[in-house]
Amino acid sequence: MITLSVDLQERGYPVFIGQSLLEDADCFLPYISGEQVLVVTSETIAPLYLKKLTGTLNKLQICAIVLPDGERYKTLNTLNLIFDKLLQDKFNRNCTLIALGGGVVGDITGFAAASYQRGVNFIQVPTTLLAQVDSSVGGKTGVNHPLGKNMIGAFYQPKAVIADTSTLNTLDDRQFSAGMAEVIKYGLIRDYEFLEWLEISVRQLIRRDPACLEHAIERSCANKAEVVAADELESGQRALLNLGHTYGHAIEAGMGYGVWLHGEAVAAGICLAARHSAILGWISEADVERVVNLISSARLPTSKPQKLSIGDMLAHMQVDKKNRNGVIRLVLFKAIGNAIVTGNYPPETLFQALSGSGDTCAGAEENCLPPDQGL
Amino acid sequence: MITLSVDLQERGYPVFIGQSLLEDADCFLPYISGEQVLVVTSETIAPLYLKKLTGTLNKLQICAIVLPDGERYKTLNTLNLIFDKLLQDKFNRNCTLIALGGGVVGDITGFAAASYQRGVNFIQVPTTLLAQVDSSVGGKTGVNHPLGKNMIGAFYQPKAVIADTSTLNTLDDRQFSAGMAEVIKYGLIRDYEFLEWLEISVRQLIRRDPACLEHAIERSCANKAEVVAADELESGQRALLNLGHTYGHAIEAGMGYGVWLHGEAVAAGICLAARHSAILGWISEADVERVVNLISSARLPTSKPQKLSIGDMLAHMQVDKKNRNGVIRLVLFKAIGNAIVTGNYPPETLFQALSGSGDTCAGAEENCLPPDQGL
Repeated sequence: MITLSVDLQERGYPVFIGQSLLEDADCFLPYISGEQVLVVTSETIAPLYLKKLTGTLNKLQICAIVLPDGERYKTLNTLNLIFDKLLQDKFNRNCTLIALGGGVVGDITGFAAASYQRGVNFIQVPTTLLAQVDSSVGGKTGVNHPLGKNMIGAFYQPKAVIADTSTLNTLDDRQFSAGMAEVIKYGLIRDYEFLEWLEISVRQLIRRDPACLEHAIERSCANKAEVVAADELESGQRALLNLGHTYGHAIEAGMGYGVWLHGEAVAAGICLAARHSAILGWISEADVERVVNLISSARLPTSKPQKLSIGDMLAHMQVDKKNRNGVIRLVLFKAIGNAIVTGNYPPETLFQALSGSGDTCAGAEENCLPPDQGL
Repeated sequence: MITLSVDLQERGYPVFIGQSLLEDADCFLPYISGEQVLVVTSETIAPLYLKKLTGTLNKLQICAIVLPDGERYKTLNTLNLIFDKLLQDKFNRNCTLIALGGGVVGDITGFAAASYQRGVNFIQVPTTLLAQVDSSVGGKTGVNHPLGKNMIGAFYQPKAVIADTSTLNTLDDRQFSAGMAEVIKYGLIRDYEFLEWLEISVRQLIRRDPACLEHAIERSCANKAEVVAADELESGQRALLNLGHTYGHAIEAGMGYGVWLHGEAVAAGICLAARHSAILGWISEADVERVVNLISSARLPTSKPQKLSIGDMLAHMQVDKKNRNGVIRLVLFKAIGNAIVTGNYPPETLFQALSGSGDTCAGAEENCLPPDQGL
C-alpha cells in the first residue's frame, strides 16, 4: 500500500492506494467519527462492492443509500435524497458519510457532507480510475445545474481517500479510458518526466498492467496533492488542473450530461487546447500531434462531437467558473509539460481552434469512436 | 455610526450599525468585488428599500431577485431560484451577492453565496431586529428541510454586515418583539450587566427609542462577535447562542414554519429552558419568574403552543444539530447570566418542563397572545 498525504494543516488527510483496501478495516476505522455511518453508492457499484465494505466495517451501525447512476443525476434533487435519508435516520453532526463509487458519487456525497448540519465527516472510496486519480482528492464537491457543470458546491476536504485498485478490474474499457484523460493531464501541465513515461507505457496501462497502474495512480495523486496543498481554493495554479475542462464541460453540457463521459470530453478538450495553443504560436504542430497521439493511444476522442455547433460550445463555455468579466479563461500550453491559465488571446483563435477539425480518432478499435457515434 | 469587528483573521469583517446606512455608498463599495452584483430580497422588503439601495449603488450593474416571504420558503427550491438567476445572467466567481432583508433572506443568500461556484462574496444588509442582532453576524447560512430547521447549510462569513437601524421603523410590532428574544438571550447567557440594563429599558426598547435601540443592537452584536471569534464552527461555546432554540425549532417545525415566528418560538424556548433548569435545581423559581417577566415584557410568548403535543415536541427535538448519540443536548442555566450546553439531565425532567404549563402570557396587549391564537 502506498500512502500519500495532502498537506492542508488541520484539514490535511492521507490518500491510501493499493490492492484490496476495501477489506482492510484499519484503513477506515481511524477516520470514522461517531457511531452513525452512511455509505452513499450507485446502482452500478452497490452490487459489486457494497457488501464487501459493510462486511469490513461490520462492527459499526451502517446504513446505505444507492443513487441512480451517471452525471445526469448529479443534481440538487439527488443531493436531497441523501438529506432525506440522513434526517429520516436521525443522523447527527458527529456522523460519517462514505462515498463508494466514481466521481459523481464522490462529488455529490462530498457536497452532502459539506452541507448536512453545516458539515460532517466524510471518506472518499473511489472505484473508477478517474475518481482515484483526480476527483476524490482535493475537496472539490458539488452538483450540476442545467446551465452549467459543478456550478453549485463547496470546497470541503475528506478525512481520508482510500483507493482500492482492485475495484478497477470491474471497470469497463470506456470508463477506464475516461480516467486516462486525467492521468495524461498531470503529465501535460506540470510533470514532463511522467509524460514521457506515459508515452512509453500507455499501451501497458490500457491493458491494466498492475504495476504500471499503481505507478500512474501514485504520480497522478502526488501531482494533485501538491497543487491542492499550494492552492486549496483555486485562487491560482490549481486552475491548471482544468486543462481541457472548459471545452470539456461545454461538450458534456451541450450533448446532455452522461452522453459523453467527463474524461472523454476532457480528452477532446485537451486536444482543442493544444490546437488553440498552436494557433497562438505557443507550441508547434509536432507538439499538437504528440498530444493527440497520446490521447488517441488511450482510446479517447481527440476532437469535439461534430453535431455540437461552435455556437453551442461557446455559449456553454461562457459560464465557466474561471471566467472574469465575460472573458473565457482557458488553460493553454506554453510548452508541453508547462500550462498556464489565461484569457489573453485573440477571440477568433478560440473560434479557429473549435472549427479546426471534425471528429477524428487516431485509434483503430471500436471503443475509440467518439461516444456520440458509438451510442 | 458604530463599527464592530468580527475577528476571524482572513475571514474577519466589520459590522456597521447606524441610521440611514442604506444611503451611504462608502459603507458598501469597499466590500463589493467584481462588476456583477445581485441583490436578493423579499416581497415585503423590495417595495420599501430596494430602490434606495440600487440608487446608492447606481454606478454598478445591479440585478435583483425578489423571493417569496417567510420561513416556509427557506428551502432548497427557493435557493435554486437564486442559482437560476445567477446562471441565466452569467454571473462569474468574482461577483457579489447582497442579502437585503430579514433572517430568511440572509440565511438563504449566504448559503447561495457559499455554494455558487463553490463560494462568492456576499454582504449582509439585515432589515429586521432579529437579523441585525443575530442571524446576519457569524456566518451561519442555510435552508430548512421538512424534517428539521437549518439542517442544510454552511458556515460562510460575509464580507461586511451593514445594519441600517432606520429600516426598523417599518417593522411591525410582532416582528420587532421576535427580535427582542435574541437580544434578551445575550444578557441571559453571558452578559449580566446587559441583562440588568434590559430589565430597566425593555419598555423604552419596545417603544423603539432610538438611543436604547442602538445600544441594544451594539451590545448584542458585540456579544455575538466575541462568541463567533472564539468558536467559528460551533465546536464549543458557540452552542450557547442556541439558548431556547432546541425547544424553539421544535415549535416552529411542529406548528409549520412561519406560523410562529422564529423569535417567538425562541422566547417560549428560553422560558422552557428556565423551567427545566429550575426542575433540575440549578436556578430558583424566582429566577424563572425573572426570565418569564422579561420575555413577557417584550410581548413574547412564555410557553409552548397548547396544540402542540409533548410527543411532537420531543420528536422534533431529536433531530437537533447539537445532539450526540441520541441524547438531546440543551442550553440550560447554571445561573441567570451563565448558561451551559448539556445532555446530562434525567430525561423525565425534559418531559416535566414541557408539561409544566400551558399557554400563558403575562402581558396585557393583544399582540402578546401566542401567535397560534392570534391568527
